[in-house]
Amino acid sequence: KYSSDVRKVTLIPGDGIGPEISAAVQKIFCTAEVPISWEEVDVTPVKGPDGKFGIPPAAIDSVNRNGIGLKGPLMTPVGKGHRSLNLAIRKEFNLYANVRPCRSVEGYETLYRDVDVVTIRENTEGEYSGIEHEIVDGVVQSIKLITEPASRRVAEYAFQYARNNGRSKVTAVHKANIMRMSDGLFLRCCREAAERNPDIKFEERYLDTVCLNMVQDPSQYDVLVMPNLYGDILSDLCAGLVGGLGLTPSGNIGEGGAVFESVHGTAPDIAGQDKANPTALLLSAVMMLRYMELPKHALIIEQACFETIKEGNFRTGDLGGTAKCSEFTDEICKKIEDLK
Amino acid sequence: KYSSDVRKVTLIPGDGIGPEISAAVQKIFCTAEVPISWEEVDVTPVKGPDGKFGIPPAAIDSVNRNGIGLKGPLMTPVGKGHRSLNLAIRKEFNLYANVRPCRSVEGYETLYRDVDVVTIRENTEGEYSGIEHEIVDGVVQSIKLITEPASRRVAEYAFQYARNNGRSKVTAVHKANIMRMSDGLFLRCCREAAERNPDIKFEERYLDTVCLNMVQDPSQYDVLVMPNLYGDILSDLCAGLVGGLGLTPSGNIGEGGAVFESVHGTAPDIAGQDKANPTALLLSAVMMLRYMELPKHALIIEQACFETIKEGNFRTGDLGGTAKCSEFTDEICKKIEDLK
Ligand SMILES: CC(C)[C@H](C(=O)O)[C@@H](O)C(=O)O
Ligand SMILES: CC(C)[C@H](C(=O)O)[C@@H](O)C(=O)O
Repeated sequence: KYSSDVRKVTLIPGDGIGPEISAAVQKIFCTAEVPISWEEVDVTPVKGPDGKFGIPPAAIDSVNRNGIGLKGPLMTPVGKGHRSLNLAIRKEFNLYANVRPCRSVEGYETLYRDVDVVTIRENTEGEYSGIEHEIVDGVVQSIKLITEPASRRVAEYAFQYARNNGRSKVTAVHKANIMRMSDGLFLRCCREAAERNPDIKFEERYLDTVCLNMVQDPSQYDVLVMPNLYGDILSDLCAGLVGGLGLTPSGNIGEGGAVFESVHGTAPDIAGQDKANPTALLLSAVMMLRYMELPKHALIIEQACFETIKEGNFRTGDLGGTAKCSEFTDEICKKIEDLK
Repeated sequence: KYSSDVRKVTLIPGDGIGPEISAAVQKIFCTAEVPISWEEVDVTPVKGPDGKFGIPPAAIDSVNRNGIGLKGPLMTPVGKGHRSLNLAIRKEFNLYANVRPCRSVEGYETLYRDVDVVTIRENTEGEYSGIEHEIVDGVVQSIKLITEPASRRVAEYAFQYARNNGRSKVTAVHKANIMRMSDGLFLRCCREAAERNPDIKFEERYLDTVCLNMVQDPSQYDVLVMPNLYGDILSDLCAGLVGGLGLTPSGNIGEGGAVFESVHGTAPDIAGQDKANPTALLLSAVMMLRYMELPKHALIIEQACFETIKEGNFRTGDLGGTAKCSEFTDEICKKIEDLK
């Protein structure tokens, strides 16, 4: 029934609720007979030569070997000067485009209906360059770095994504009225990508305007592409429209591979209690399946997940229900059996 | 009945719809017998020694002399390399805090009820430093500049504003997890201001989280203080919750004075047609009156304005009505006569 070559996928369960939601995804994948095998790796931070904590080499090797990974939330090591391991992974593998689709979840009511937007965020530079100086006491500069190759690459990706996903418009989001040179360069790369992709509509909007419009009428947007920080902001805003980070998937796309991750936190307060909602990680895994060209498995799992939420009998606490993570998971598995 | 010393206020009517909404405010102020006199100045850009357009010296002198101004929207001079005159004014007078209250307007329905938040934005530096370089071809850096004096000043202002306006909490909005040094410095200044103002609650939140929460439940926020660009973004988002920039006032506060302005555009498509909505400029003028310690005039005008919108018979086109700007204005004047 399905293609039979089994690919290996690196699994980084993560901290806090990470292991339980990862187990949920594994169970669901097993039920759906997804032809992959998991290579689970430990990413407990190790101290590098610079004294900072980082991802252990064995985990890095695994992602490099497999070219594809799924990860749960990682805690940032406690203490001064440690950087987020979530970011470290994006950087390490040069995962240049962070894709976050936000769609209204049927049956889960928010103030908005029929939201369907995708933010595509440059994922390697911009305000996340990490370059900062204290020039004199009390005077600090942070450097936002925009390069043509990175901008061009993510702009081009946005158009390809739009085309491959049956979408019709890309909006470049910027503040080139203020950062004329940096956002100006980003914008120019988007315009050039638009010229190379004339079948997809293109428009440019200021970030502040997009935020204002987005809360009034999200339907005017489709795919949006932007520098790193703007994507951080706008993707969270859009997630808020449809119910938060517990319901929205995320994929980090690179040249040689991709890592899909839920972008919510580790939720230490409910960790280990079988209360977590695995939806964001599961939908990230569904994105991964589409990326791996396993669309049928993706569709079945997605349908089963949305159907379960819509019916409403097995909702986890964050969605106003009382179901355990395992009950929600089992219900999805039951539906997959029916759909198979 | 009212204090009788008449202060001069610089009026910058602005471009596009600026003159008509300014005339509306003047008429309303006249009806309310506000004890100020207007000094109207022309800010048609003049070319400076550097070849760039700027504000004419006579206009600058007027604001410096009067210490207080009201301005409509200004067009940015067309052509490469010209900067926004709206920003130039904030910079010229060192107007360090940009205050934008966003409150639901009774009778004007949006998805949200009872929104009541105030964004306070550092207005002189940050991502708006204007310092950018092309290091090599296709590699640009923009510098975000955060200084202790500017951060401390705006943080302190936020707490004072909260106290003077009967508000109970200040939230510092930042990305110090990413820009550890610059946003870190800003955050430290907020923490120190919080210690000096223990009667006001204080909390810190990531910008992305604030955006997510704001669209789900704005009632959890009160006064928010943040670096320049974050304020640009968040103030527009908040304006969107209550109906847009046509309904929200703005004040730029400096050490020696203040300029109040509507932050919507010049709306060239409807300029000169008596269709514009003067509410944002009028509410900015009301903020100005409170700043000038004329709270009774402020209250009467504000009541008349909100009452008119609430009744709904004289709404301008942007609010779904068919009233002309002058009809809306006359109705407000009528109500002021009744309230006096
Ligand atoms: C965890 C944090 C460093 C990260 C970011 O700022 O990008 C997060 O907010 C995200 O959106 O993935
Ligand atoms: C006009 C523009 C330069 C300005 C800004 O970016 O600050 C505007 O968006 C604002 O919020 O006042």
